[in-house]
Amino acid sequence: MITFLIKCPDQRGITAKITSFFYDHGFNIVTSQQYTNVKEVKFFMRIRVECDNFEELNCEKLESDFSKLAETYKIEWSVDFGKNKTKVAIMVSHTSHNLYDLLYKHKEGKLNCEIKMIISNHDKLKDIADMFNIPFHHKPIAKDQKLEQEKDVIECCDTNEIDLIILARYMQILSADFVKHFENRVINIHHSFLPAFQGANPYKRAYERGVKLIGATAHYANEDLDEGPIIEQGVERVTHECTPSSLKSLGAEIETMVLSRAVKCHLDNRVIVDGVKAVVFPEVGA
Amino acid sequence: MITFLIKCPDQRGITAKITSFFYDHGFNIVTSQQYTNVKEVKFFMRIRVECDNFEELNCEKLESDFSKLAETYKIEWSVDFGKNKTKVAIMVSHTSHNLYDLLYKHKEGKLNCEIKMIISNHDKLKDIADMFNIPFHHKPIAKDQKLEQEKDVIECCDTNEIDLIILARYMQILSADFVKHFENRVINIHHSFLPAFQGANPYKRAYERGVKLIGATAHYANEDLDEGPIIEQGVERVTHECTPSSLKSLGAEIETMVLSRAVKCHLDNRVIVDGVKAVVFPEVGA
Amino acid sequence: MITFLIKCPDQRGITAKITSFFYDHGFNIVTSQQYTNVKEVKFFMRIRVECDNFEELNCEKLESDFSKLAETYKIEWSVDFGKNKTKVAIMVSHTSHNLYDLLYKHKEGKLNCEIKMIISNHDKLKDIADMFNIPFHHKPIAKDQKLEQEKDVIECCDTNEIDLIILARYMQILSADFVKHFENRVINIHHSFLPAFQGANPYKRAYERGVKLIGATAHYANEDLDEGPIIEQGVERVTHECTPSSLKSLGAEIETMVLSRAVKCHLDNRVIVDGVKAVVFPEVGA
Amino acid sequence: MITFLIKCPDQRGITAKITSFFYDHGFNIVTSQQYTNVKEVKFFMRIRVECDNFEELNCEKLESDFSKLAETYKIEWSVDFGKNKTKVAIMVSHTSHNLYDLLYKHKEGKLNCEIKMIISNHDKLKDIADMFNIPFHHKPIAKDQKLEQEKDVIECCDTNEIDLIILARYMQILSADFVKHFENRVINIHHSFLPAFQGANPYKRAYERGVKLIGATAHYANEDLDEGPIIEQGVERVTHECTPSSLKSLGAEIETMVLSRAVKCHLDNRVIVDGVKAVVFPEVGA
Repeated sequence: MITFLIKCPDQRGITAKITSFFYDHGFNIVTSQQYTNVKEVKFFMRIRVECDNFEELNCEKLESDFSKLAETYKIEWSVDFGKNKTKVAIMVSHTSHNLYDLLYKHKEGKLNCEIKMIISNHDKLKDIADMFNIPFHHKPIAKDQKLEQEKDVIECCDTNEIDLIILARYMQILSADFVKHFENRVINIHHSFLPAFQGANPYKRAYERGVKLIGATAHYANEDLDEGPIIEQGVERVTHECTPSSLKSLGAEIETMVLSRAVKCHLDNRVIVDGVKAVVFPEVGA
Repeated sequence: MITFLIKCPDQRGITAKITSFFYDHGFNIVTSQQYTNVKEVKFFMRIRVECDNFEELNCEKLESDFSKLAETYKIEWSVDFGKNKTKVAIMVSHTSHNLYDLLYKHKEGKLNCEIKMIISNHDKLKDIADMFNIPFHHKPIAKDQKLEQEKDVIECCDTNEIDLIILARYMQILSADFVKHFENRVINIHHSFLPAFQGANPYKRAYERGVKLIGATAHYANEDLDEGPIIEQGVERVTHECTPSSLKSLGAEIETMVLSRAVKCHLDNRVIVDGVKAVVFPEVGA
Repeated sequence: MITFLIKCPDQRGITAKITSFFYDHGFNIVTSQQYTNVKEVKFFMRIRVECDNFEELNCEKLESDFSKLAETYKIEWSVDFGKNKTKVAIMVSHTSHNLYDLLYKHKEGKLNCEIKMIISNHDKLKDIADMFNIPFHHKPIAKDQKLEQEKDVIECCDTNEIDLIILARYMQILSADFVKHFENRVINIHHSFLPAFQGANPYKRAYERGVKLIGATAHYANEDLDEGPIIEQGVERVTHECTPSSLKSLGAEIETMVLSRAVKCHLDNRVIVDGVKAVVFPEVGA
Repeated sequence: MITFLIKCPDQRGITAKITSFFYDHGFNIVTSQQYTNVKEVKFFMRIRVECDNFEELNCEKLESDFSKLAETYKIEWSVDFGKNKTKVAIMVSHTSHNLYDLLYKHKEGKLNCEIKMIISNHDKLKDIADMFNIPFHHKPIAKDQKLEQEKDVIECCDTNEIDLIILARYMQILSADFVKHFENRVINIHHSFLPAFQGANPYKRAYERGVKLIGATAHYANEDLDEGPIIEQGVERVTHECTPSSLKSLGAEIETMVLSRAVKCHLDNRVIVDGVKAVVFPEVGA
């Protein structure tokens, strides 16, 4: 299965042009999802196609032909031929629930990726990496050496051709350079329903504010803390009985569900980033 | 805006064929939503198009041309040119919350239809019809005269060219003939999350079973009681504290939300019935 | 049924002391709900009692006796003998959904109160007041005369012995004096999940931020805009397809549900305000 | 912390009597939760108490004294002195998500119990038991030897003094004798929102019925399949796009959340079974 993600100015006949392109090239369109932002005159499309002799498919030829179409219609696009699994690095600090959740779902075959490594500024979660046989890289942050550690992480990821970094409760603010280096390839989980309780200690602040709902948000990291494009959010009802500690415990469940769903969206090529927002196409049957 | 609802066997190039048809006829595709049931090799599409000189549009010509395409590809289809509002009859018995909800949303302009009349086997809710200036037809059911009353209702609806009947807590089981006469044009609200608690007294049975969730289901009525195609469902958490009476009161809120959403789906031409199931396309911006 | 709301420092034996008080006075405890804030050493209780000869009950004697207990244990308390319905004023501007919702639920007997009047700075919603036969007071705000209008509203409410003011989308910021005059007796609906999107245009800002959830919050108004004690919150999932306008429409449903629930909590004497937070006891069977 | 669970006929002064009992014995009541079923004249209470010198507490004396009170007021009761952790056996077949979820939450210290063993009629999940260092007992079911296998399981559990059996997708129907042996001590997860889709293949049937919500239910197993007292339920919205396979995958998330919450309720002594229903007190701050 081949997946194209497409973004361009909205224009008459664009759907017909694109679908005809694939039809004329002998493809069957398995699913086609589109979204038109009428106000901003933008068109987004996720289209999955297949052909009878996929093995012999000339990928370069297809890319080259599509490039011509793209030029004509000012299309920004990407394609995933489904031949290589996304290579993932998970970054963590002390908290384990998101890590366990991602690792067991990966082991069950529910996340279509290859988890190449776990990177942490602490060594507390090494045992979990060992349990699941994933290499663990301990990269502590020495005093005033934060940028050095980041460089080290970047090099490690690049060497291993990491496609996606998951911040599974990594409690460090990443530099703008780091984030830019992996643009739209770093997914963070924040433990509140953004934009509420941006920054530190959201559960404590939720307790103090007396909210009746708590939540979690998965988003691409960008240069502005907790302001990147939102992929997925979840909430749960709480009551005055909740303490900061019980909110934390309840929140852990939301965080695991929200992060694993967001990661799944990304791995399924269902997200197109558009400025500070993310177009997230729903899952379609398979 | 013109909306086509399309159902046909899935086949190579069908999206390209259909979108090209509209492009070639000078239309702009505003939204295109499709669903392929891979297993059953079926294709469903909702496509909304517009043209520059809609006023002069030759609807008959368009229908005639599309018919030819439809014949080639075995397409079942319907079109709404958006020129006439859907004519609605609401049927009720004693319970008022769904009626109030539909009437005030209609009055606020949130339901794109014309509510022509309220029909009831009782006269209890006549005052509400009067408040909103909607004609109220009291059609009581005399002993052993149920079919006669149904005939009367059918005639009344047909005379007024009713397109859609909403059973807003109409507590009578309709005959197969009645339902067939208005196939896929009768929306019922059932006060449980079907298929749980089909039939009578769902809240009482929910209480007795000790469920922790109650719900409501809006579906097209078909010949089998509470088994028609489901359009929308909602649930709410409940606890052991709930009594049959508080379940009923809490349930009323779910019923109003679920029924008005289902009606909105229907009025927006977002539902395609397929056997006992309903394909319900999500709302798209406009 | 008599309802006591109680707040005091937590102390050994407090539950036994209070429940014994009622037992010794010949009352049956119908429900007793309590909450201990361990960290802040505070105790909260809602207790509903009844006696066999309620008609002859000496309310003054009971209050006087309970006062003595209250003094000993530093209890802040209120009692509702259930003899008079809460008198309510609803304040609105242009938006009608919350008003319709409250009025029809009131008419159905689902809100245990007397709606004495509707006050508005505009006359747009007068027809709705008329439909439901509720007096409508048009109190426009002349240029630089906002405080004068407020005084007028206060006088009108006081004259009519209003117990509770519901701001059902009243689009004016109330002065600190106004709010203090009706301390913990003004319920506002804000159209976002606070503390996200405090202030103006929350749906527009939600659209621009690309959130995947929108919500509504009902809270007591206090001197700080949108920062009063939260009674109830609700959310709904949204997608990139939503426009500011469809968010508004979807949000209306959440607003009606959240506001009517919060009002019900207040009318059922289930809320105890504690600083910027509200202890909201769950509904118990009746 | 000592927790009493209490069930008795409702009677005047019962709260005062019970709370005074603990006060008079020198205990501090940390939390007290009660529920009165007015219709059935039943009273339920969960009360947690502590005293200053817990180490020296004479548990037998307390039990003996409370027995006398219990006799007077026809109280059925149990007490947990919090000195021993609940001993748990998890039974599984092929499906791993609930097992992973319980094991990692247990390892994180979020389930207040000791998982003594995993029992399975297959050996497929042995590796997971090994990862978490939990003994794995493979107890296959030979042809026509189901009762023998059950006897073997019972003996194994009794020998190890198992308090609670969790059926984490154990795909065998247990005999009435087995269930009776562990009355109200076997928690099962069923992969639908009961009473909908009782029995086999709920996701396939949900697909065929075209529901818009799927769910999961955790309940105590009793003699009637899927009809035991419900502890917790959860649902998630689905669309026509979902296939039986994607429903299964989405459902796995609901199953893990629902089962782990139900287990937590049980381990926290928050459940009192009453016939086919379960009174489940909400979590209170710690």
